[in-house]
Amino acid sequence: MLIAKVVGSVVASQKDEKLTDRKFLVCQVHDHHNEPQNQYVVAVDSVGAGTGDLVLYASGSSARQTELTDGRPCDAVVMAIIDSWDLDGTNVFEKWSD
Amino acid sequence: MLIAKVVGSVVASQKDEKLTDRKFLVCQVHDHHNEPQNQYVVAVDSVGAGTGDLVLYASGSSARQTELTDGRPCDAVVMAIIDSWDLDGTNVFEKWSD
Amino acid sequence: MLIAKVVGSVVASQKDEKLTDRKFLVCQVHDHHNEPQNQYVVAVDSVGAGTGDLVLYASGSSARQTELTDGRPCDAVVMAIIDSWDLDGTNVFEKWSD
Amino acid sequence: MLIAKVVGSVVASQKDEKLTDRKFLVCQVHDHHNEPQNQYVVAVDSVGAGTGDLVLYASGSSARQTELTDGRPCDAVVMAIIDSWDLDGTNVFEKWSD
Amino acid sequence: MLIAKVVGSVVASQKDEKLTDRKFLVCQVHDHHNEPQNQYVVAVDSVGAGTGDLVLYASGSSARQTELTDGRPCDAVVMAIIDSWDLDGTNVFEKWSD
Repeated sequence: MLIAKVVGSVVASQKDEKLTDRKFLVCQVHDHHNEPQNQYVVAVDSVGAGTGDLVLYASGSSARQTELTDGRPCDAVVMAIIDSWDLDGTNVFEKWSD
Repeated sequence: MLIAKVVGSVVASQKDEKLTDRKFLVCQVHDHHNEPQNQYVVAVDSVGAGTGDLVLYASGSSARQTELTDGRPCDAVVMAIIDSWDLDGTNVFEKWSD
Repeated sequence: MLIAKVVGSVVASQKDEKLTDRKFLVCQVHDHHNEPQNQYVVAVDSVGAGTGDLVLYASGSSARQTELTDGRPCDAVVMAIIDSWDLDGTNVFEKWSD
Repeated sequence: MLIAKVVGSVVASQKDEKLTDRKFLVCQVHDHHNEPQNQYVVAVDSVGAGTGDLVLYASGSSARQTELTDGRPCDAVVMAIIDSWDLDGTNVFEKWSD
Repeated sequence: MLIAKVVGSVVASQKDEKLTDRKFLVCQVHDHHNEPQNQYVVAVDSVGAGTGDLVLYASGSSARQTELTDGRPCDAVVMAIIDSWDLDGTNVFEKWSD
């Protein structure tokens, strides 16, 4: 999985019928030091993530292992909202720090 | 999924028989700010996309989860035509803005 | 799929027995403007492609969706020989132009 | 598989229910000379790895072939803790050398 | 598949039990001109490859299509030892040339 920040969403009315009512999130990849990277992915939301959330997303066939994405043409899914992470014992990100 | 613009199509009469009548679209990847990237993919169309459309495409085994691509040697599928997207609350692209 | 030119072939007598009689093609990736890229792949041929042909190849599990590659340790397959393609209405490549 | 060093962990209380009690490790990729690379992955632990361990991780659908990850939206798993490796007959890393 | 040279091996006593007795080879990727690249992979051996051999390896789910890797958390397998290859009719590598 990679760390990403939800920065937007995509509207697409004309799509594969199995994707009806799925929410497409624009996610900007962050590195493990929480620096935004020049890389993004559009992922289906499976956990109720919203703009500004730092999340984990899974790619490839693993993106189809949630109830909302099973058997669907979807290659990226947000499967966790991050509370916090640390590197070498030092906190890098803490959702509730503000 | 990644955002891409349909910029052309490929004709290939000699191909795996399971791909007969499938349309191969040349798609140029765009970033989330809608800037064209130096990256392309040839994807099978599953939603009636045409030249100039901004679309989402799915890669890998997920590209085989549509009726038109199921069980076929196809690793990229256009599965949605984008109406619009936003970043941080600001509209980046709007199909019907013109 | 990506566009590639068949530039050679690999001989390997000692290999997984399920790959006996499969032809390994050295394919150089081309971009959508038909410029050769600094990237190659070795792909199994499923359509009778030969040196000099411009082809499409599929990667990953999709590479196992042909009769010749089904259930085999093969992650890239040539599944189409390109006749032509266009970009923004202009022909980029035409097999029979010479 | 790639070589990586476990450098931290991610806490995510809101996640796909099939990932409950799974441990998310922040892993920094190392090259074969044991140089840290500017690349990381968040992987589920299946072998009891801890901070500082050099490990192997598997990606994609192969990341779901352990008991802890089977059928789960997980695209990277730590499936081995490295004891040592050599290059051209010379030891590069030895876990118990200190 | 990609071309790689076997340059070492990894010892890992603590690993997923399904990987017991599997040999992990450190493989350095070569390009199609046989130039070593700054890229490596750790792959399970399925063909008896040894240090110095030029091999083909398959990635992703295709890496699990050999007897030794079926159903195992392994995303790269050496599935062929290269005898020779040519580019544009010129021999690039010949195992038995010395």
